[in-house]
Amino acid sequence: MKKELLKILREKKPLVHHITNIVTVNDCANITLAIGALPVMAHALEEVEEMVSAADALVLNIGTLTNEQVEAMIKAGKAANRFKVPVILDPVGAGATRLRTQSSKKILEEVKISVIKGNSAEISILAGKGGKIRGVESQSGTDDIAEAAKDLANTYSAVVAVSGATDIITDGKRIAYVKNGHPMMGTITGTGCMLTSVVASFCGVCEDYFEATVEAFVAFGIAGEKAAQSSSVKGPGSFKVTFFDEIYNLTPEIIEKDKKVEV
Amino acid sequence: MKKELLKILREKKPLVHHITNIVTVNDCANITLAIGALPVMAHALEEVEEMVSAADALVLNIGTLTNEQVEAMIKAGKAANRFKVPVILDPVGAGATRLRTQSSKKILEEVKISVIKGNSAEISILAGKGGKIRGVESQSGTDDIAEAAKDLANTYSAVVAVSGATDIITDGKRIAYVKNGHPMMGTITGTGCMLTSVVASFCGVCEDYFEATVEAFVAFGIAGEKAAQSSSVKGPGSFKVTFFDEIYNLTPEIIEKDKKVEV
Amino acid sequence: MKKELLKILREKKPLVHHITNIVTVNDCANITLAIGALPVMAHALEEVEEMVSAADALVLNIGTLTNEQVEAMIKAGKAANRFKVPVILDPVGAGATRLRTQSSKKILEEVKISVIKGNSAEISILAGKGGKIRGVESQSGTDDIAEAAKDLANTYSAVVAVSGATDIITDGKRIAYVKNGHPMMGTITGTGCMLTSVVASFCGVCEDYFEATVEAFVAFGIAGEKAAQSSSVKGPGSFKVTFFDEIYNLTPEIIEKDKKVEV
Repeated sequence: MKKELLKILREKKPLVHHITNIVTVNDCANITLAIGALPVMAHALEEVEEMVSAADALVLNIGTLTNEQVEAMIKAGKAANRFKVPVILDPVGAGATRLRTQSSKKILEEVKISVIKGNSAEISILAGKGGKIRGVESQSGTDDIAEAAKDLANTYSAVVAVSGATDIITDGKRIAYVKNGHPMMGTITGTGCMLTSVVASFCGVCEDYFEATVEAFVAFGIAGEKAAQSSSVKGPGSFKVTFFDEIYNLTPEIIEKDKKVEV
Repeated sequence: MKKELLKILREKKPLVHHITNIVTVNDCANITLAIGALPVMAHALEEVEEMVSAADALVLNIGTLTNEQVEAMIKAGKAANRFKVPVILDPVGAGATRLRTQSSKKILEEVKISVIKGNSAEISILAGKGGKIRGVESQSGTDDIAEAAKDLANTYSAVVAVSGATDIITDGKRIAYVKNGHPMMGTITGTGCMLTSVVASFCGVCEDYFEATVEAFVAFGIAGEKAAQSSSVKGPGSFKVTFFDEIYNLTPEIIEKDKKVEV
Repeated sequence: MKKELLKILREKKPLVHHITNIVTVNDCANITLAIGALPVMAHALEEVEEMVSAADALVLNIGTLTNEQVEAMIKAGKAANRFKVPVILDPVGAGATRLRTQSSKKILEEVKISVIKGNSAEISILAGKGGKIRGVESQSGTDDIAEAAKDLANTYSAVVAVSGATDIITDGKRIAYVKNGHPMMGTITGTGCMLTSVVASFCGVCEDYFEATVEAFVAFGIAGEKAAQSSSVKGPGSFKVTFFDEIYNLTPEIIEKDKKVEV
């Protein structure tokens, strides 16, 4: 892994175009700024192609999808493909409703996705291995989630990233297990969405999307650990505040020192 | 009041489906997590029935309503009725515009509501007693808001909860006055919406919705008091952060000790 | 500048109707409360006229515009004109896409705007002088932004306010340079939007919109300075929290003492 990927990100300040949900959109914008990139949110059919033409990465997050929004996602995604802008898909709640499962699959069929990032139930379901999701929280997936992730990665020629106690990232050949992170991250909404924004930020400056995604998961997890250990954290409110501070205060040296990755 | 309702909530972790406004949706998700439940936000007509079928409670909050959203609310509400999922209505700004007043009434006519939660102007107006609202803030209601609440409760066979310096909760027969809470709660937007999410979380684990609503108001008010008394609070920004921490750190013992309820 | 404008604002508590973006809508509501005004967010075509009829100021912010939302903005804006309610336009990302540039111009043609508030690229582009914007961040504008702002002010008989290291506010005749503020304000999303809400809050109590806008920029910048200097700030998360506290804790005396204005 390149030691200096975060440094490059902060120098280049990639523009990350989001089409995302109404719940965590503010957090996604702020985490994108905190890691060192530049967020822009735009979802009108009339402007998504033009906006993505100036972007370095595109996030498609279906957390509060509608059919109209999915249409805008596909339009933006196809434009991103033409402009060689990496597209990061977060299939939030795939498996919870038919609309979410089918919309995720439709996006995957119509747009070349660079990274699919979900929890184990979402990835397991999209890989055709079944799984159980409650609202948007994973309850269970296949027993061999690593294999399912590899299959999905090969089907769509994409990097697949599965968040969990141990995160799994694979491009179908390479596989990495990331053990950074902290249970406090589950006490606030939006950590999954924010992680997707950070993955997109790294993909905006590194064409090896496997490497970029691993670096993003490591950085995100380390910030979570540091925030959880902070003496000022008394619960999820103060954890969230401190987590943004820790993302902002990350350095390549901290990442190199604290990363827990098995490849 | 059952002493251990919060304990049951945290064990069962009810899924609370929200169709709510764009202003406070993130706060509602976070407060639902902080009290110990699981939030999901979904408003597409195509998925609301399926999502609510898996839920333990449904919140309908009209804070930034549109006709299309009200249609989704009614569809979700009717499905909730079929699935015996309690529906909590927050008629934000009823009385401020005809759209809000009429939409609230339409929802009440077409969906069996378990709890109607509003401020004194909103409840007074829905009870047909007049009232004055400025934006979404209550200016005045009927002189006998307790009577208006009882009437409304009897009209719709629902629990009616009126937030204020003293909160009033009634099912048309029983009535409770809750004196927990703190004026600092009015310095941030969304406390009303968040309270509705907490009411729904308790209703998701307790079929006596009167009791569940009283417990929710008490818990919410106590957390507000504790946050306001915290030495780290210097204004509404730090109050909000601390309030989330205090909701998360509530215990059945704290609630039992600090509750101020007259029945 | 009237020393006591903030005092008047807090006594009158003007109602500020927002039609704004989904990214920062919660922050805008909270900053409006923190400065001492009362926010209401409503965007349904069916209610915007009625809502604005009760308001003291109207914010139109195109941060995540759609054609339908622009239609609601124009309807609300025209009603505001009839009711003599000042309209504050934040043309977020004008220049980034044709939709944003054209929508800004359409609003300016159809609604009498009291204050146009943007960054130097947005103002430069709307003044017809070119400029470069990346997402919604200004990259460059005309060399003589003060002249462009004056031109734009004269074209639309509006106050034009340009945010930057030195803010420029002009009504086409008078011009003020505000040097309050701090670079930390750029580490969080939404400071531009929040500033617009604060401008609207002051315009809701002062018919001299030039003076009101200068006072808003000064107050906002001072709060940013004070937050940045706070020992509890460790990054953008804690900065944002402290910034809300500092807005809330502003007094006319602090503003008088710390203001840096050249006229």
